[in-house]
Amino acid sequence: MRETSPELSLTSRELDLIHRYWQAANYLSVGQIYLLDNALLREPLQAKHIKPRLLGHWGTTPGLNFIYVHLNRLIKAHDLNVIYVCGPGHGGPGMVANTYLEGSYSEIYPDITRDSDGIAKLFRQFSFPGGIPSHAAPETPGSIHEGGELGYALAHAYGAALDNPDLIVACVVGDGEAETGPLAAAWHSNKFLNPQHDGAVLPILHLNGYKIANPTVLGRMTNEEVKNLFLGYGYEPLFVEGDEPAPMHRMMSETLETALDRIRHIQRPAREGRATDRRPQWPVIVLRSPKGWTGPREVDGLKVAGFWRSHQVPITNPRGSPEHRKLLEQWLRSYQPERLFDSEGRLHPELQALAPTGNRRMGANPHANGGLLRRELELPDYRDYAIDVSFPGGSRAKATRHAGKFLRDVVRLNRDASNFRIVGPDETASNRLDAVFEATDRVWMESIEPYDIHLANDGRVMEVLSEHLCQGWLEGYLLTGRHGLFSCYEAFIHIVDSMFNQHAKWLKVARELPWRRPVASLNYLLTSHVWRQDHNGFSHQDPGFVDLVANKKAHIVRIYLAPDANTLLWVVDHCLRTYDRINVIVAGKQQAPQWLTIEQAATHCAAGIGIWTWAGSRIAEGEPDVVMACAGDVPTLETLAAVDLLRKALPELKIRVVNVVDLMTLQPKSQHPHGLDDREYEVIFTRDRPVIFAYHGYPYLIHRLTYKRSNHDHMHVHGFEEEGTTTTPFDMAVLNRLDRFHLAINVIDRVPGLSITAAHIRQQFRDKLIEHARYVREHGEDMPEIQQWSWPYKTAAEAGD
Amino acid sequence: MRETSPELSLTSRELDLIHRYWQAANYLSVGQIYLLDNALLREPLQAKHIKPRLLGHWGTTPGLNFIYVHLNRLIKAHDLNVIYVCGPGHGGPGMVANTYLEGSYSEIYPDITRDSDGIAKLFRQFSFPGGIPSHAAPETPGSIHEGGELGYALAHAYGAALDNPDLIVACVVGDGEAETGPLAAAWHSNKFLNPQHDGAVLPILHLNGYKIANPTVLGRMTNEEVKNLFLGYGYEPLFVEGDEPAPMHRMMSETLETALDRIRHIQRPAREGRATDRRPQWPVIVLRSPKGWTGPREVDGLKVAGFWRSHQVPITNPRGSPEHRKLLEQWLRSYQPERLFDSEGRLHPELQALAPTGNRRMGANPHANGGLLRRELELPDYRDYAIDVSFPGGSRAKATRHAGKFLRDVVRLNRDASNFRIVGPDETASNRLDAVFEATDRVWMESIEPYDIHLANDGRVMEVLSEHLCQGWLEGYLLTGRHGLFSCYEAFIHIVDSMFNQHAKWLKVARELPWRRPVASLNYLLTSHVWRQDHNGFSHQDPGFVDLVANKKAHIVRIYLAPDANTLLWVVDHCLRTYDRINVIVAGKQQAPQWLTIEQAATHCAAGIGIWTWAGSRIAEGEPDVVMACAGDVPTLETLAAVDLLRKALPELKIRVVNVVDLMTLQPKSQHPHGLDDREYEVIFTRDRPVIFAYHGYPYLIHRLTYKRSNHDHMHVHGFEEEGTTTTPFDMAVLNRLDRFHLAINVIDRVPGLSITAAHIRQQFRDKLIEHARYVREHGEDMPEIQQWSWPYKTAAEAGD
Repeated sequence: MRETSPELSLTSRELDLIHRYWQAANYLSVGQIYLLDNALLREPLQAKHIKPRLLGHWGTTPGLNFIYVHLNRLIKAHDLNVIYVCGPGHGGPGMVANTYLEGSYSEIYPDITRDSDGIAKLFRQFSFPGGIPSHAAPETPGSIHEGGELGYALAHAYGAALDNPDLIVACVVGDGEAETGPLAAAWHSNKFLNPQHDGAVLPILHLNGYKIANPTVLGRMTNEEVKNLFLGYGYEPLFVEGDEPAPMHRMMSETLETALDRIRHIQRPAREGRATDRRPQWPVIVLRSPKGWTGPREVDGLKVAGFWRSHQVPITNPRGSPEHRKLLEQWLRSYQPERLFDSEGRLHPELQALAPTGNRRMGANPHANGGLLRRELELPDYRDYAIDVSFPGGSRAKATRHAGKFLRDVVRLNRDASNFRIVGPDETASNRLDAVFEATDRVWMESIEPYDIHLANDGRVMEVLSEHLCQGWLEGYLLTGRHGLFSCYEAFIHIVDSMFNQHAKWLKVARELPWRRPVASLNYLLTSHVWRQDHNGFSHQDPGFVDLVANKKAHIVRIYLAPDANTLLWVVDHCLRTYDRINVIVAGKQQAPQWLTIEQAATHCAAGIGIWTWAGSRIAEGEPDVVMACAGDVPTLETLAAVDLLRKALPELKIRVVNVVDLMTLQPKSQHPHGLDDREYEVIFTRDRPVIFAYHGYPYLIHRLTYKRSNHDHMHVHGFEEEGTTTTPFDMAVLNRLDRFHLAINVIDRVPGLSITAAHIRQQFRDKLIEHARYVREHGEDMPEIQQWSWPYKTAAEAGD
Repeated sequence: MRETSPELSLTSRELDLIHRYWQAANYLSVGQIYLLDNALLREPLQAKHIKPRLLGHWGTTPGLNFIYVHLNRLIKAHDLNVIYVCGPGHGGPGMVANTYLEGSYSEIYPDITRDSDGIAKLFRQFSFPGGIPSHAAPETPGSIHEGGELGYALAHAYGAALDNPDLIVACVVGDGEAETGPLAAAWHSNKFLNPQHDGAVLPILHLNGYKIANPTVLGRMTNEEVKNLFLGYGYEPLFVEGDEPAPMHRMMSETLETALDRIRHIQRPAREGRATDRRPQWPVIVLRSPKGWTGPREVDGLKVAGFWRSHQVPITNPRGSPEHRKLLEQWLRSYQPERLFDSEGRLHPELQALAPTGNRRMGANPHANGGLLRRELELPDYRDYAIDVSFPGGSRAKATRHAGKFLRDVVRLNRDASNFRIVGPDETASNRLDAVFEATDRVWMESIEPYDIHLANDGRVMEVLSEHLCQGWLEGYLLTGRHGLFSCYEAFIHIVDSMFNQHAKWLKVARELPWRRPVASLNYLLTSHVWRQDHNGFSHQDPGFVDLVANKKAHIVRIYLAPDANTLLWVVDHCLRTYDRINVIVAGKQQAPQWLTIEQAATHCAAGIGIWTWAGSRIAEGEPDVVMACAGDVPTLETLAAVDLLRKALPELKIRVVNVVDLMTLQPKSQHPHGLDDREYEVIFTRDRPVIFAYHGYPYLIHRLTYKRSNHDHMHVHGFEEEGTTTTPFDMAVLNRLDRFHLAINVIDRVPGLSITAAHIRQQFRDKLIEHARYVREHGEDMPEIQQWSWPYKTAAEAGD
């Protein structure tokens, strides 16, 4: 497809070496899938040498190996800093084989020695109980990406390249993965990569033509269409196509040289301050090679190589079928293992010499074990951003606006380190974090018009209307040792449920590997939440993400519901200091009453849960008649408003108010490290008094967290009942029975005897609900007494009156 | 951008009428956002005429209105059958305005009359408590799509066009939405649309340049790049660009004529049997027009029209600010309402005449209210596909394989109706549903090679490696009155969590609207499930989708866990008969013992839960000592194996076995229509005996469903504890303590006294776990006694021995 510069061509000796190195990787890949013993085929292959269960994916692997050996050549020739993001992560045998060949594997796992014994162990452990998984995974050296779910390789690659000017992230995208939405969107990441400060991403679209049982969409497109597609995405496509090894080796090495040259031609002027008019056209390599390349062409008369039948294990049951066993042996011997490994099973020195050394090996590159490079963030003192709260409810503020000021200074303090980014789907301003734009801009590599606002080539805020891209970029950024925050509308974070799952799984496994150093936590700030999407309606009202989060391993996940601005400051500061976790922060962005001073907030948040004595009834001695618990800003407001109603109407009723910031405190200590022990729990919630719990999300989660607690039968949770539309904020609460009147009525219903003695009070509250319904339908806004309500007790003395 | 054929040009009278119709739609759109009264500006605008809370999105609306009026012209000129999928669904005012102008709105909502009074009500109800939502929604006539979350418009459009040869689905894609992954992938849907049997999709990419607070990626790309991108996707792009209304009207009407011409040139030969070599290049229209077109250019000295400031409400606080009120009045009067509506507020007759009539109106097209067109599926008798089960465990089978045979005949029986499709991400065969390929193929419009298998232009199975596309296509197909099934790996269905959420919300609202007729249920068949992804590892192991599902409204969702093939047959048959629901079926695809005859399966599934007396201890009289409950195929197997262990070791122990197929039976009847009442529940689970519950997914869900039940304190749930890797199937169960030994040990621990009297038995079970761990690590497969275990009691008599 391209012209060839003769000076870039491989000599025939180089070609032979590269080919044999590739054969070694292919041999080790097939061996991992099939062999239990006789690893170097020193004797004829027998049934007992073959694994009882054959697990693994061959089809993509020879292509992955081909790319690996050619990247090795490029790295060595130019002393490059390259990591390998393997989109088709099910080609695990290839990644393991290559890191073994280059030696990084044995450094991390010393029992897998670089000799016959080590190869035997390498084969045996693959997809074997107690061994290693079949996919590239946290266990795989050099990996920041598990290709299991497919879709996120390219976003991870771009995330890794940000703020790493010397790094080249080679990213293999399979043509299966290329059909996914997240991957299709990720090509546009080139609009956010700054050639001056960021590294390069070199995507290699590997069109081997087939998925599990189908051709691929991109694989069947003509080269003309593929070329147009990438020109449209803003890349320069370079094609490598064929199945004959020798010309393919020549073409691949030349094309990689061309790609490197293009990258240098983009980066050099940018770094020398010579601006270019247009966003650069980064190169992309399109590699068309047969699926299952070098493997069996036919098995039982059916086409295998170059077809989807080679996707997983191309030859079935070689243990039971002598004919299949013979085919397998022929296949293995076709790589001529005796030309690859010496009598002791060591890779021949002239082949060893092909691999880069030290940290230049892709399996040993510290960027792929980002914790090694992680520097703590410089954080300002969160107390400096505190809202003055002279008494509870004594001031009003927008919680995220103040968190925004804190984040602005996080950006400032870490400007030189270039290791903190904020991502979000076009919502940083809408989520009221716009103070960060005093310190930085949104990164934007397209044209910038004179009237544009806060756009720049080197902004540290990344906004694109794709939660998938936001999450993928941030994961890549964190896994390579940096820090960040994802701010998102609460309802739409569900878009990345599955990415969250996969990242949580990665962290769970990585924490169990001592050589993987801790990486910064993934921090979500969810705002524009269910109770204040009254204007956007039902599609924007969904608080269920935390339910998903709570399914994950306790040491990985944290959920914080900030009731006001000062608590949010503490929580954001805290989360930015943690590592190897996923922190979910839910907070409001609307003007709302503030409850705690910064000192009170710190004490409250450090405990994660607490009794708000100032909010409870005057009569505090002895057990309360009822506990009113709350979690989340709107539930806290409605709970306090309900307490106010009840204190006035039923002054003898003993109410205790409990606020929960850290949801995990509700779980038993045995299930979560933040869980209260039963005694602490009972001191707060009592053993047998009714608890009216106003919760931000779906009520079931509170039941699920507390079902083992002694007074669970007395727990009555109000939360989101999946009732929503475009209406007023207070009407949203009423529709879901989370409002002050429903809460107060439930207190009357649950406190023994009260439903009879306070029946008239109960009726007053019901009348209020009817009055509200009439009012909003007439005026289109909430009743003034609702809009203007504030906590009326300014001092302890007053509260006692 | 294009040459113009003079005969396609609008006359100046036509142009004037179209322009005024557009102005009418724009006027009604602004009025909805702002006005509470004085709807036709018969008097000067005063503060009291303006809504107290201004909610709505102006920016996209004039473009949506522009497209609507031009589609009206095209429909009328050619008597076309067109529906309008509005990707930027937040432009709700435009959709409401246009359906009002054409009359379909007033037919559905008769109180919104076509006069001044009706217009006043139309304005007032918009985004008003008790009124209508701010977005295009189920409430909006002609809509099958809510644009709230963004990403799915084009997939919905393609789903609607399938098997509707006469239909043209005009699909507006905003440039914000175009940044999302699902939308980026959806352009490739053209590879699955058959011009012979399917209708056409006419995508209109609306580049108005801005999102909430940013330019858009595609909006800032050059026309050259946009053109290449669409050529790459396989479309013919047609550009319409500008801001002067008159030339824009001319260009748009000509371009729509051209697009229709292209569609006819593609469809005609295909339908006349003249095959073409290549997949057709369908047209796509790229419309570049200013955001907030015709709205205020500047407010307070800041750029508004043609910029993101016009996204929502461009003029704030016209109630409080006389200056802003004046600006608003000028804006409204710029449309010259007196030229649009007569003295009684009726649209002038010459404008009314522009709209199509009857069902040709896009707001009245029955395809957009698919329940009107829905035909019941012809279903074969599921009993004809039954596995012969002469005694429990007496045969082995792969459950989904038999469901596949049933589905094959569903395809056959409904071939003429062309109203049933199966979608899935390249997994129909892998999920063992391959019998369907005896009746149909996979649809594929790319080239087909001689060695390809089961690919055809008119297949009824749709496979693409994008769960988003599968879901989006199916939703579009169902909402236009057809039927289908989505088969998916269990772990990766999380990819469409948010789409599931939005569809559930759509159904919930649609069910409350009497004019929306019921549509067929969305049926998920989740297989390749957590317990048998031992070969793919941790990334493929996630049973959490049902947790999300259980958050939704009880009348919308059902969850079925089929323990064997015959139960699965009943469940699939049942789900295909339901409507307005989302049914989630979880079933196995691996060879496994079969428990129930088809008659037993029918009785069991109809109840949803039942005592398996044949599986319990011989001593059946009186209350059991322990209830062993199970839900899911592997949990059922392990429970029965545990019972077998316990019956042999502790013959006096009274065990009751309960199997749950319909998970919702566990909930109280007050919470779910399938819930057992408390008496029924207690008859099954007892009031106070320990329940050892082996559950397919995360254990919390069972606690959440049963926390209100009397014996909840005695409920001990074993399930997925987020422990996984590549290992053997039985080791997966052991890692998560769902295996027979852990279950049996827990019985000993929970039955009072047994932990002392049966301590030696308990120790034997623990020893077995150690033996298992040693065995799998040595042999790489499960112990023969595990692999070969079968239910040993062939007859009731034998079971009693």
